[in-house]
Amino acid sequence: MRGFRTDLAMECIGENDGRMDGVQVSTHRVGDITHTRIRIETESAAELLGRGKGEYVTLECSDLPTCEARRRDALSKMMAHDIKRLLPRDGEVLVVGLGNRNVTADALGTRVVERMLVTRHLHQAITGELQGKLRGVSAIAPGVLGLTGIETAELCRGLVQHVQPAAVIAIDALAAYETQRICTAIQITDTGIQPGSGVGNHRLGLTKETLGVKVIAVGVPMVVYASTIARDAMSRLIDSYGVFDSSHEDAAQRLLRQVAEGFLGDMVVTPREIDELVLNVASLLADGLNRALQPAVDAETLHHYLHI
Amino acid sequence: MRGFRTDLAMECIGENDGRMDGVQVSTHRVGDITHTRIRIETESAAELLGRGKGEYVTLECSDLPTCEARRRDALSKMMAHDIKRLLPRDGEVLVVGLGNRNVTADALGTRVVERMLVTRHLHQAITGELQGKLRGVSAIAPGVLGLTGIETAELCRGLVQHVQPAAVIAIDALAAYETQRICTAIQITDTGIQPGSGVGNHRLGLTKETLGVKVIAVGVPMVVYASTIARDAMSRLIDSYGVFDSSHEDAAQRLLRQVAEGFLGDMVVTPREIDELVLNVASLLADGLNRALQPAVDAETLHHYLHI
Amino acid sequence: MRGFRTDLAMECIGENDGRMDGVQVSTHRVGDITHTRIRIETESAAELLGRGKGEYVTLECSDLPTCEARRRDALSKMMAHDIKRLLPRDGEVLVVGLGNRNVTADALGTRVVERMLVTRHLHQAITGELQGKLRGVSAIAPGVLGLTGIETAELCRGLVQHVQPAAVIAIDALAAYETQRICTAIQITDTGIQPGSGVGNHRLGLTKETLGVKVIAVGVPMVVYASTIARDAMSRLIDSYGVFDSSHEDAAQRLLRQVAEGFLGDMVVTPREIDELVLNVASLLADGLNRALQPAVDAETLHHYLHI
Amino acid sequence: MRGFRTDLAMECIGENDGRMDGVQVSTHRVGDITHTRIRIETESAAELLGRGKGEYVTLECSDLPTCEARRRDALSKMMAHDIKRLLPRDGEVLVVGLGNRNVTADALGTRVVERMLVTRHLHQAITGELQGKLRGVSAIAPGVLGLTGIETAELCRGLVQHVQPAAVIAIDALAAYETQRICTAIQITDTGIQPGSGVGNHRLGLTKETLGVKVIAVGVPMVVYASTIARDAMSRLIDSYGVFDSSHEDAAQRLLRQVAEGFLGDMVVTPREIDELVLNVASLLADGLNRALQPAVDAETLHHYLHI
Repeated sequence: MRGFRTDLAMECIGENDGRMDGVQVSTHRVGDITHTRIRIETESAAELLGRGKGEYVTLECSDLPTCEARRRDALSKMMAHDIKRLLPRDGEVLVVGLGNRNVTADALGTRVVERMLVTRHLHQAITGELQGKLRGVSAIAPGVLGLTGIETAELCRGLVQHVQPAAVIAIDALAAYETQRICTAIQITDTGIQPGSGVGNHRLGLTKETLGVKVIAVGVPMVVYASTIARDAMSRLIDSYGVFDSSHEDAAQRLLRQVAEGFLGDMVVTPREIDELVLNVASLLADGLNRALQPAVDAETLHHYLHI
Repeated sequence: MRGFRTDLAMECIGENDGRMDGVQVSTHRVGDITHTRIRIETESAAELLGRGKGEYVTLECSDLPTCEARRRDALSKMMAHDIKRLLPRDGEVLVVGLGNRNVTADALGTRVVERMLVTRHLHQAITGELQGKLRGVSAIAPGVLGLTGIETAELCRGLVQHVQPAAVIAIDALAAYETQRICTAIQITDTGIQPGSGVGNHRLGLTKETLGVKVIAVGVPMVVYASTIARDAMSRLIDSYGVFDSSHEDAAQRLLRQVAEGFLGDMVVTPREIDELVLNVASLLADGLNRALQPAVDAETLHHYLHI
Repeated sequence: MRGFRTDLAMECIGENDGRMDGVQVSTHRVGDITHTRIRIETESAAELLGRGKGEYVTLECSDLPTCEARRRDALSKMMAHDIKRLLPRDGEVLVVGLGNRNVTADALGTRVVERMLVTRHLHQAITGELQGKLRGVSAIAPGVLGLTGIETAELCRGLVQHVQPAAVIAIDALAAYETQRICTAIQITDTGIQPGSGVGNHRLGLTKETLGVKVIAVGVPMVVYASTIARDAMSRLIDSYGVFDSSHEDAAQRLLRQVAEGFLGDMVVTPREIDELVLNVASLLADGLNRALQPAVDAETLHHYLHI
Repeated sequence: MRGFRTDLAMECIGENDGRMDGVQVSTHRVGDITHTRIRIETESAAELLGRGKGEYVTLECSDLPTCEARRRDALSKMMAHDIKRLLPRDGEVLVVGLGNRNVTADALGTRVVERMLVTRHLHQAITGELQGKLRGVSAIAPGVLGLTGIETAELCRGLVQHVQPAAVIAIDALAAYETQRICTAIQITDTGIQPGSGVGNHRLGLTKETLGVKVIAVGVPMVVYASTIARDAMSRLIDSYGVFDSSHEDAAQRLLRQVAEGFLGDMVVTPREIDELVLNVASLLADGLNRALQPAVDAETLHHYLHI
């Protein structure tokens, strides 16, 4: 019963796939944070898994959005470490918040952009200690096709040509397969945003190929598709009854397709308190990003600049 | 496989329950609006169905939140007609918006209250044509227990004692069993708000017994519980296989309980565009309520007063 | 005592300036709407008045944001007529909402963009009656320099190169000299946005010279600078006393400069209910713009598309 | 030229009033925070100054809303100290956020209430270290008369009778005389809210007399009336010219009255970035209040409970 919709690479890797040719998986734990690094190294592995070739880091923490200050600090440091490793050493960075600011579960990108320390326009204004130590950062949440009439990918291409950053960081709300991942996993990848991914189902991708510069994508699952829940429930029921023969599974698939193409099509599953969770996750991501982009600035000074 | 969570009386009435003793059901269609009226007339029927004794009107329209001006007008007129019928002829009315304004799917009550024509404080200020023709209306969205520390029902009891309205209208976001009902059905009932109902699972009810005045409740389904989707999927699978014996169903129930008490517990299913839908539905409900409460004022004058 | 800050051309034209060489002023009234058309025709007049050469239309209505349906309809029709006249007959239009969405008085542009009928991406999807009748419209509120790190004018130049519209319409919140103009005047001009103008004091202009296509600017005064109020009060006091000699005026100017450069520098005067006024004005402007851009679509169909 | 509108007691006390009979004024500085304590001890002094008898503490800090972490910490500690001193030692506290949440400059009360640690409903749920150490706190922002149809004071009286707190803390946005006070002074008083005060001009007061329990009012100036600016400008001009005879001042008063009763009537002066300032000030006030109300809980635990 493969084929569930997920934007998390780690959910595509089955128990035995770690030993698949062309895929490297390593996991380690720091306190109650799990750090998983997946490298898809060959085109054939990429095709098999339906993901782009490159690196995928996932940080998992079961109470990520509400955890106390010390743990948030640890998480944002680990995030900053991986993002910095994937970024070019020098040059400006453009942060793009994807998604629709008017759709709670899809507004993560916008909320992160609102919390970024934007410095590109300050170069001349900065004197004293920080002079020459700030990386140039610009940030925009351009809005979705339905609201602007302009494809996000097109719009970003125009921006990149104009702003000429060394890299783009794209922030997006993701769909997961397991409801337990909602708001508890951060995925960082150097493969950019793939077409069809995200809560918003981006029509075009944002990748090195389309934008001409390296694209780091950072995302957190915000929803599970309702059809995934239905499919999963059926699959659990089938699994508990060895008696089912394979014809049952076919029938389940047919049933599922009816359900998904029917009324469940556009429905998503979220925690009831999703509005608050989005803000908490956005603030954590912004913290990690600001650290990654401004390593010369300590946390307190960052907070002061941002009036947080 | 009874026992699904729903706040809609019409979803509790099975195909044959219309002929149940103590229950009257009548349905008629006007254009593509379906008007269903259920009267639960005996205590025994009330207990069997798990609903209070009284009247439940449901207006259904498959594209309710986005339908064009003429159809919205028809819907709000039908709504106004039923609400006016259930209200006392004279006396002030207090409109209470239940739910949490910070939770998109639970904010319906707050959004309706924001759109009410509030007149209680205007009595002396009004002269000319409208003098003596406005019903006194007050409106409040008091916020949920978790944010105020005060039970909504307690708070309303205090308010009612103070404001002394002839009736209360309570607006609430509901949970349904069928996803197709989300944002497509309006339930109007003279039984008030029952404990445990609504997206917010109100701890205490708002009824004639607790508040001392008639309580009309108006609600629209905004979510289906994720566990309902899972349960429904299993149940469909079982239904397609006559071969299942009753032990299967027991096992399915056990499985379901695990699922629901586990990670699906707090999860809700909504359309992706729920933020916009809530605003559209709120504006329709407010229109119907304002008409019901101020029959002497024509629609254009109402809009002018409300600067809509 | 010239030199007050205002973005309204009509406030630069003194009582006798109508007869100034190179300036044409004509005024007519329709009901209680005043329509003023100023044409600055020579460079020398432009320099004298400190405005660009071109046309400035102002629609004034003393209760513009709260007037009843019929009057709003008349206003939006007049607006649509003048905008259509200034636009090229054919080709796509890009609507740009200037200003900072997080600053109430500066959010007008953003609020208008949110209410635009965006069609550029629909061309293939539209069939039936409207096929071939919709003008391609895209719309964006890119955010201010302080939030994005990118000059709005730069960003727009990039967008225009990419989207290639036949014209740009820029919406902006203005500063006036007279408090009575706040939210009661709509200025439409084919001279674009001048550097230093608007509540946000745009650093660079958006004009035909900088963007390469015609730029129509539409704005409504949202604030008066507090220093204007102070200056105006002093000036009224001086005017009431013929006894003042010219040295008094010099002293008043010195005093004023102290005041304005001191604590009043960044302060603005607004009506207390500015939050609501911005939304009402935005909805009126969007109505006028949508009519101007889609003359083939009647008002009701427009409203349906926009789910208003 | 007395008679300017201000809600700050310290602005009513002239340079020599400190020596007025029945008034005690003491000032001390801690770093760049100025702490002023005014006690109005006799009815005659109260009448002369147009303030209630009681204590007024003002904390002033010129960059209060944007100052860095350490200074904010010092401010919130000083605030907590004075509030705790004025509160009864034991018993529940009801926090009431006054003002209109839809009017940026008047939304301070609402924004503070949103950030309060509400505990009244948790008594049974709390175990472990904190058991028995939390003061019962409830909090509500009931909304203004124009939106609810119910006088805030009436509504609060009903609430107090029901919730039976030992004291009420009322939070409100104030009007000042000097623009430099906007967002830079915190006033704490045990005299409650007086009729006519606040940005919202409360019709009825919230005092021990009307509510039956002690009322501590906490407020920060958010606006200066535009007519105050005009009056102040004229007064400065007059002051710089000894030549004016007293008839000039009368004329200035007449002029001012025309101005204030005319178009400046409802206009307020605010910094352009008022939206952000309100949020920053609200977060500071909530911090001080939460400390005052829960002295047994350290700052980090407080933040954790509030998910800030």
